[in-house]
Amino acid sequence: MSTSLLFTSDSSADGVRERDFTVGGVPGVLWSPDSRPDRAPLVLIGHGGGIHKKAPGSAGRARALVLGCGFHVAAIDAPGHGDRPRTEHDEREIDALFAARDAGEPEGPIVVRYNAYLAEQAVPEWRATLDALQELREIGADGPVGYWGINMGTAIGIPFVAADPRITAAVFGQHWPDFLAEPAKRITIPVEFDLQWDDEHIPRSAGLALFDAFASPEKTLHANAGRHKQLPRFEADSAVRFFARHFGAPAAGTAAA
Amino acid sequence: MSTSLLFTSDSSADGVRERDFTVGGVPGVLWSPDSRPDRAPLVLIGHGGGIHKKAPGSAGRARALVLGCGFHVAAIDAPGHGDRPRTEHDEREIDALFAARDAGEPEGPIVVRYNAYLAEQAVPEWRATLDALQELREIGADGPVGYWGINMGTAIGIPFVAADPRITAAVFGQHWPDFLAEPAKRITIPVEFDLQWDDEHIPRSAGLALFDAFASPEKTLHANAGRHKQLPRFEADSAVRFFARHFGAPAAGTAAA
Repeated sequence: MSTSLLFTSDSSADGVRERDFTVGGVPGVLWSPDSRPDRAPLVLIGHGGGIHKKAPGSAGRARALVLGCGFHVAAIDAPGHGDRPRTEHDEREIDALFAARDAGEPEGPIVVRYNAYLAEQAVPEWRATLDALQELREIGADGPVGYWGINMGTAIGIPFVAADPRITAAVFGQHWPDFLAEPAKRITIPVEFDLQWDDEHIPRSAGLALFDAFASPEKTLHANAGRHKQLPRFEADSAVRFFARHFGAPAAGTAAA
Repeated sequence: MSTSLLFTSDSSADGVRERDFTVGGVPGVLWSPDSRPDRAPLVLIGHGGGIHKKAPGSAGRARALVLGCGFHVAAIDAPGHGDRPRTEHDEREIDALFAARDAGEPEGPIVVRYNAYLAEQAVPEWRATLDALQELREIGADGPVGYWGINMGTAIGIPFVAADPRITAAVFGQHWPDFLAEPAKRITIPVEFDLQWDDEHIPRSAGLALFDAFASPEKTLHANAGRHKQLPRFEADSAVRFFARHFGAPAAGTAAA
């Protein structure tokens, strides 16, 4: 059963058209070139844990892809995030995460299991969203589709991309291999993967093991010196160029926010 | 004692001025923007083993840096390479390398020791070349200087950069840590480091150990799927952008040959 897309707002600023939508009750946003009605590639952005579909990182990446490449960009709120209600389970896991943080205990085990739980719900939501987006004339069913998500965006994105052959290039990074190495082994599309060399949460060997798991003949690891939250901004520029290279858009400069 | 630079040829084609030179008998080449007499940053390119200063890889990278960024680019022949004579020691090591290759034995131990031997001679040659280049009005003594060398270019480049504080950004890659981890620990400038994830000569752990050794607060590992000789061409574009980012030039597109 296909669930269609309902637009709930439509505005434009600085060359970017922004339309809020829902698909089967899941709230999303579609950013598009203001000036170009032609069919163009689509990049899906999966946000990180604790933030939402329009957080500055996502909005800045969308802006770079729209203005630098002429692409469409869509994001949806993950379960329990943004404009969506939290369940009791969500509240328990978030409490457990903050308790571990306060106690100086490892956050990894909680993040790993909670993100795996969220991915089970989020993967069919992403697939239904993509179904609906592809019914739009300016996107269509045959064009290239990319996925870009780091942290929780990778925990949801790897099983999503492994399950959906419409995605033809992806940027992932910064997660543990526990639940993700198996679906990563089924991924063969070009992948760019970000890892922080001095990540205080994700052991280096765990990050490298997840990169190693992808079956993609073209895969690139970008490992930067620094801690978990210090992923350099130039990696956003690099990801924009990665999609531009694979989807045939003009190479973008340094427009990512 | 400063040895000065003697130009031996001067020609221009497609916007790039190419001047051959010698410094203390070492042959080199300086590529510059044809149209811009202003002072501009300098990038030094160290070629790989068995090739020479004007091999297509070096010339293409130089072209991208000159046309995309407006930089000067210089390369010199390593000892025993290009227009320079081979010694008996060179001949013995090259014979040993081919014998190992023909016998299906590891090439690594020979490459490691021979490149370390060459670096001892090449480091003072590079320093003298840089002394002489900085006397040119269009380069000057105060401007940014980069170094870019993979394979043997890294075996020579790491001890060179560790010894010469004038180099302020460097691209290295694809070598063993045996003789290089120690000087790498003294390097603190921004580094981009290329490694092939499925390198049949350099064990993955060896490549990662060399990247790990750099003391640089900003260092980025680019590890790509593929064997030793399959370093993707887009890594040359990435290196050009790395120098553009650090030296303040306009970000270059996909001009690298």
